[in-house]
Amino acid sequence: MDVRKVNLAEKFAEFEEQWSPKIAGEVNESYVKLVKFRGDFVWHRHEDEDEMFLVVKGRFTMRFRDRDVVLEENEFLIVPKGMEHCPAATEEAHVVLFEPKTTLNTGDVRNERTRDVLDRI
Amino acid sequence: MDVRKVNLAEKFAEFEEQWSPKIAGEVNESYVKLVKFRGDFVWHRHEDEDEMFLVVKGRFTMRFRDRDVVLEENEFLIVPKGMEHCPAATEEAHVVLFEPKTTLNTGDVRNERTRDVLDRI
Repeated sequence: MDVRKVNLAEKFAEFEEQWSPKIAGEVNESYVKLVKFRGDFVWHRHEDEDEMFLVVKGRFTMRFRDRDVVLEENEFLIVPKGMEHCPAATEEAHVVLFEPKTTLNTGDVRNERTRDVLDRI
Repeated sequence: MDVRKVNLAEKFAEFEEQWSPKIAGEVNESYVKLVKFRGDFVWHRHEDEDEMFLVVKGRFTMRFRDRDVVLEENEFLIVPKGMEHCPAATEEAHVVLFEPKTTLNTGDVRNERTRDVLDRI
């Protein structure tokens, strides 16, 4: 079985595309995904999936309907299933996601940023 | 619902105990755990659970039966279910685990380091 360590900085250097999660690992029923944020995403929610966001470089704001949370490097936030949220970043942020394999990036919304199939990296 | 960000450095500063994972978050069927490694742990395996190790400070060696993998800061490794492993650290390492809630720290082994009940932090 393939057991290789992953260096986050090296992996993030391998792609440029923003708002397009890449699969970097698989832990039981969850994926570890790497994603670059810049600009505003889209308001959405995940009916059945909690979603974890860990910042490894930069910062971003997670908007909720009642408040904003600014996430800095080495901080994480878990958005519970059902809760509307919208990430936004004024400068590029590198974010690690942990979430069930079934999670669609735009949740209950479909638009030009929806990614049904994710690359592995 | 409680949605609070977690600063990893602050959380790791809240405890001293080594080899005793603390629950820092819950993502669906998985926990996010924080653990300090120092010295040698115990050879074990998890029959049904993959286990993810992400180093946020320091470094440690994951020993497998056929080789060692040294994990540095901002590197992660996923140990697949069934694979024997033994973490070891010459200096203290701060490690984030992501694994199913059912995962016992010593896997198929029970000894003085087994933790059946974990504190939340």
